[in-house]
Amino acid sequence: MNNQTLILIQCQDAVGLVAIISNVLAAHDLNIVTMREFVDEEKGKFFVRVVCTGDLTDKDVLKKALESRLPQQAFVMVNPDLRKKLVLLVTKEHHCLADILVRNYFQTMQAEVVAVIGNYDNLQEFSKKFDIPFHYISHEQKSKEEFEDELAQTIAQYPADYIILAKFMRILSPTFVAKFKGKLINIHHSFLPAFIGANPYKQAHDRGVKIIGATAHFVTDDLDEGPIIVQNTKSIDHSYDVLHMRTAGMEIEKAVLSRAIQLLTEDRVMLHGNRTIVFK
Amino acid sequence: MNNQTLILIQCQDAVGLVAIISNVLAAHDLNIVTMREFVDEEKGKFFVRVVCTGDLTDKDVLKKALESRLPQQAFVMVNPDLRKKLVLLVTKEHHCLADILVRNYFQTMQAEVVAVIGNYDNLQEFSKKFDIPFHYISHEQKSKEEFEDELAQTIAQYPADYIILAKFMRILSPTFVAKFKGKLINIHHSFLPAFIGANPYKQAHDRGVKIIGATAHFVTDDLDEGPIIVQNTKSIDHSYDVLHMRTAGMEIEKAVLSRAIQLLTEDRVMLHGNRTIVFK
Amino acid sequence: MNNQTLILIQCQDAVGLVAIISNVLAAHDLNIVTMREFVDEEKGKFFVRVVCTGDLTDKDVLKKALESRLPQQAFVMVNPDLRKKLVLLVTKEHHCLADILVRNYFQTMQAEVVAVIGNYDNLQEFSKKFDIPFHYISHEQKSKEEFEDELAQTIAQYPADYIILAKFMRILSPTFVAKFKGKLINIHHSFLPAFIGANPYKQAHDRGVKIIGATAHFVTDDLDEGPIIVQNTKSIDHSYDVLHMRTAGMEIEKAVLSRAIQLLTEDRVMLHGNRTIVFK
Amino acid sequence: MNNQTLILIQCQDAVGLVAIISNVLAAHDLNIVTMREFVDEEKGKFFVRVVCTGDLTDKDVLKKALESRLPQQAFVMVNPDLRKKLVLLVTKEHHCLADILVRNYFQTMQAEVVAVIGNYDNLQEFSKKFDIPFHYISHEQKSKEEFEDELAQTIAQYPADYIILAKFMRILSPTFVAKFKGKLINIHHSFLPAFIGANPYKQAHDRGVKIIGATAHFVTDDLDEGPIIVQNTKSIDHSYDVLHMRTAGMEIEKAVLSRAIQLLTEDRVMLHGNRTIVFK
Repeated sequence: MNNQTLILIQCQDAVGLVAIISNVLAAHDLNIVTMREFVDEEKGKFFVRVVCTGDLTDKDVLKKALESRLPQQAFVMVNPDLRKKLVLLVTKEHHCLADILVRNYFQTMQAEVVAVIGNYDNLQEFSKKFDIPFHYISHEQKSKEEFEDELAQTIAQYPADYIILAKFMRILSPTFVAKFKGKLINIHHSFLPAFIGANPYKQAHDRGVKIIGATAHFVTDDLDEGPIIVQNTKSIDHSYDVLHMRTAGMEIEKAVLSRAIQLLTEDRVMLHGNRTIVFK
Repeated sequence: MNNQTLILIQCQDAVGLVAIISNVLAAHDLNIVTMREFVDEEKGKFFVRVVCTGDLTDKDVLKKALESRLPQQAFVMVNPDLRKKLVLLVTKEHHCLADILVRNYFQTMQAEVVAVIGNYDNLQEFSKKFDIPFHYISHEQKSKEEFEDELAQTIAQYPADYIILAKFMRILSPTFVAKFKGKLINIHHSFLPAFIGANPYKQAHDRGVKIIGATAHFVTDDLDEGPIIVQNTKSIDHSYDVLHMRTAGMEIEKAVLSRAIQLLTEDRVMLHGNRTIVFK
Repeated sequence: MNNQTLILIQCQDAVGLVAIISNVLAAHDLNIVTMREFVDEEKGKFFVRVVCTGDLTDKDVLKKALESRLPQQAFVMVNPDLRKKLVLLVTKEHHCLADILVRNYFQTMQAEVVAVIGNYDNLQEFSKKFDIPFHYISHEQKSKEEFEDELAQTIAQYPADYIILAKFMRILSPTFVAKFKGKLINIHHSFLPAFIGANPYKQAHDRGVKIIGATAHFVTDDLDEGPIIVQNTKSIDHSYDVLHMRTAGMEIEKAVLSRAIQLLTEDRVMLHGNRTIVFK
Repeated sequence: MNNQTLILIQCQDAVGLVAIISNVLAAHDLNIVTMREFVDEEKGKFFVRVVCTGDLTDKDVLKKALESRLPQQAFVMVNPDLRKKLVLLVTKEHHCLADILVRNYFQTMQAEVVAVIGNYDNLQEFSKKFDIPFHYISHEQKSKEEFEDELAQTIAQYPADYIILAKFMRILSPTFVAKFKGKLINIHHSFLPAFIGANPYKQAHDRGVKIIGATAHFVTDDLDEGPIIVQNTKSIDHSYDVLHMRTAGMEIEKAVLSRAIQLLTEDRVMLHGNRTIVFK
């Protein structure tokens, strides 16, 4: 991974974009190792993720060289921060939190957990084992506004690239969401858009589905309606009651959320309206 | 498979049901090879599917013997017809029809296709290759009632155990559905309850899902709301446009529908309210 | 789960076994909630797992009642210990160990980890966080016999139902294996029987496979030849080098091993020659 | 799909290859829609598949322009034949043949079946339904050499891009394989390299595996050792006997083989030693 340069570009589609980009890179003595692109022909948008090897002397110079040759208002990123900071929000369930903290402890993520915030205190002891600051902020006997203000102030103490709702079971207001636009990631315990809202396993049991799932997505104002990053499913049968579905679902939830964090922190995810481009 | 007896029972739950059933079977010199049961503890219902070996002299005697010992209004079936008759309803898409007709031709299903009805004629030639009667009943220039009357009369010519909507793209009225209660099976091209209704792949693309699916289900009055028999899914990515999703989806659709037909015709599916018990 | 009785039976197949068993249970006022059986017709063997509700006064009386009615040498178990004890053996890789210790800490397994033994010490600190005794037993500068003697003596300090080789990378001698017959569980990082032996991901890469997998199995004298409990796979493509395969494989390995432990500790696994019967 | 140009390149890796290629394309007024590349850093090889739009006047001119700028001995292909011809070899099993002939009939493959050759005649009637020439060439009362000569002569009557062994159960000699190097595609009914050779389901049952699979691969001299194109698997349990495994396996086999044919005929597969690069 030494001497690698990562370049992300998003712009209007046009003839010759790959030629332009590869010429600029060649002029900077950078050799393309991986180039993954996507053209949304309907919307006329171009997305690319390039990994190069070679000695890059000044990333701002490269960024400007690219921008000057690409269509106006191109979004160009060269070597984004390689170790993102994460703040985790939790309620009572441990499975997603534990999965992330173990990866953090053994440094198998390209990210660092800087804090955990819980609206209950039952995950405090576990977080402390890994020397991660835990902030207990109860939502009880407070207005939603007061609760969210406390949350926001606590988050603000940390340089968070992403705020991960790792089974955080409070609905966040548009005001709060707006404050952290593009940074809030949620795990929903169904294959969205099935079973939006509360108690999806109960809904799924009532409907008699033969498959359950989980969805990691960006949070937007509309509950459970944000851009989807990762989904996965698991076959079940009639013998699963709600509790059994929930237990089986936890395994999918933690795998899906950790995979989404991996993709995000490796800068493989680009937002495109209400959809995501994911360069695996 | 010689000398096998299949017994299906559905009744109120009670203490000692397995003992009662196995005693009756032993008294008839039948040896249990497979017994799959399910108790819905919440609703107090018991379901069982038993396969026995041994010489059964009179299936009605066995049925009565079981019923006399089981809770009142027990539903008992002994050796249901082993080769179900199927009528297929199609519109223009061939993939489900072809998959079923090939299985029918090579006799790998425990069922027999007795007729195909299409509201277009483009699948007529294919059906004829397999010597299956094809009825072309256009929905055009007719009221829904007239169209459905023609359908019902044509179906009535055949001894159909199940009417398979193998990509039949007309919505059926409650009157029609009532006529064939418990016999109408549909394949819906999404993992229900996501994307109910028309054009699910278009809906799925707009929502930016990372998984597509298909659902085989009993048809009830509420569109796409009937008891689910089989579901399956497939991972996709941002590069799938609606057409690509539809093409990939066809592979799931035909596999899911054929699997549902297999389960139904082997008498492995029991209806339980809006859910199904499937003894694999 | 209150007042539940679990019964496991393995015996020669015979006519009327289910009747015999269900009658004995009914005579003890036990109501069958779940009964899963399997008959190996070729080998003439019968396996059953029954869950009952009701007040069981004396499990030995029930066991004897069953044995007296069943074919000779029937293996009958009534209410085996519900919380199995596990000793974990590890080398350097953390992913399986961590997954199990987290489940142990939050008590989501029907089992208890009583000790960890490592032939390196790098997982000591992690194990200590969870107050699990860690024994560092290096294999270096010792004969295999000395090393295994130390292992065996350390294990002997604990009442272990199963010894889990959670990525323990030393081959164990037949002598050692014999000492813990039926109790040693290994996770192998391939879908056995493909890629037996060392460095399966290197072998898989050389072969150009499009799928990788993992296998949890009982350990017998023949390396990687013991009865398989759980397997799972994941699709890969040409872009996966050996390191990437290993990283992706870890996710499957930990899921497969934890699933095997769950099945074992819930007494859902029966040995049948070199195969396993797994009642899910 | 109008006006699309497909370019496949395989050459030694070097700095600036993407720039070279994209410049040549831009100079020919071709706009890159999709570019998928792979660099085998260990072996120093570069592979790329490019789809362009624009008016290509002369594909040979473009090919030469690319070759003159790329490393020596680059393999460059511009607009390979878009509708490959397939000859199918079968024995007795119908499932793969039927799946391919249905796709051929409805023209959902980018390929055309020009003939079927069977060493039994039981699939003749089915092939004839689709107006595909069927050649019955029995292997009985002939030397292997005579049999293969007949096969080769019959194949030679057709302009075959690929010869698909669609459950052809005779082992082919190195002489025969050499004659059709790179064109012979086989479906093996296991996840290779597990269960090489005869009767893989029997082998799998004896081994007690919990997963079965299928593999589509190029045929080389070493039985079941050729480059793998597609693999897939399915979970099974102890209740599957050999027959049940075979029946369940057929569903995987036909899906895997048809997928491989699709990838090959869309020119998405490149050979790289004993491995394949598959640009999906």
